[in-house]
Amino acid sequence: MGKINIITIGREYASGGRTVGKMIAEKLGILFYNKEILHMAAANLNMSADDVRFADETAASSLLYSMSLMSNLSTSSALPLNDRIYIEEREVIKSLAHKGPCVIVGRCADSILKDIRDDVLNVFIYADTDARVKRAIDEYGEDPDEVYASLRKHDKKRSTYYNLNTGQKWGAKDNYDICLNSAKIGVDVCAEMIMKLATELK
Amino acid sequence: MGKINIITIGREYASGGRTVGKMIAEKLGILFYNKEILHMAAANLNMSADDVRFADETAASSLLYSMSLMSNLSTSSALPLNDRIYIEEREVIKSLAHKGPCVIVGRCADSILKDIRDDVLNVFIYADTDARVKRAIDEYGEDPDEVYASLRKHDKKRSTYYNLNTGQKWGAKDNYDICLNSAKIGVDVCAEMIMKLATELK
Repeated sequence: MGKINIITIGREYASGGRTVGKMIAEKLGILFYNKEILHMAAANLNMSADDVRFADETAASSLLYSMSLMSNLSTSSALPLNDRIYIEEREVIKSLAHKGPCVIVGRCADSILKDIRDDVLNVFIYADTDARVKRAIDEYGEDPDEVYASLRKHDKKRSTYYNLNTGQKWGAKDNYDICLNSAKIGVDVCAEMIMKLATELK
Repeated sequence: MGKINIITIGREYASGGRTVGKMIAEKLGILFYNKEILHMAAANLNMSADDVRFADETAASSLLYSMSLMSNLSTSSALPLNDRIYIEEREVIKSLAHKGPCVIVGRCADSILKDIRDDVLNVFIYADTDARVKRAIDEYGEDPDEVYASLRKHDKKRSTYYNLNTGQKWGAKDNYDICLNSAKIGVDVCAEMIMKLATELK
């Protein structure tokens, strides 16, 4: 892919970011990681996917965790499970990036790889609320009466998770190389644009 | 250009946004408006470019102006000159958009055209501080000792101007369809990406 080997995709809930990532991985013939990262981290901790589902992109925001970032507490069982999983996911992400070209969705991958690799393209996908509501109802089968609350809840969860773990602001354009409004542009064209960038950047 | 006739470009100071816009206009063979909008607004107010240079993308933020947005005071000479010019620029931008395909840089054009046209692509160009510092020194000939202050001053001026006049937040991705980091992507590829989008969107 030229200079770029890794594409990270941050995304607002129901913006189609995961779909965009999957399209790119399929068309470029590279690996796609989303929930797989959680499952790999769980396996490394000798846990099942069921054990850790609750912790997916969810911050525990403990003081112990903040301390662990500055020390070597990372494997300490004194940490809340969310934090132990995040720390393990961080290692999984670094190791996957090292293995070869891939698309990584969410999980602070942009920030985790920021200072250690220069072959990463960081993308953020967002969309107007109306378009996200439609996607959540049509594609995720959400209850129309609860969909606005669902959008708020999921975005809040993702932003808290990202902000606490990275010290950066989730969705702030400065963390990304390109931000695309999928409601205006469409997921197909979003995928095309990102592939074009990833293959053309020198 | 398919569905898109107007491309608006917001930009951080020294991010290369103006250059990107100029490239697009030249390659697509459409008109390019930047400071021309100020000059046209001045002419409509029977003033010279010299008379109004101080007011370029500068907010007066007066109470009178806020009132004028809700009434028909727009031609009132009671308003500060900055505000009279903004109101006139708003009319110039609407009229230029009506005339035919073009690129418009800055001047809140995205917000001004938002509710009245659906053939607009709104772009924001930003870049890392280091890259902007380099551009300001190399291309604008700024003094290296004062360049950080210059960046802050210009961005502050643009954000105040945009935020007060539109009620939106300058540079917040939700106001734009695509945001591009010109330091990572390069101005040439930024221009290519935007042209591709503008010509392909249906």
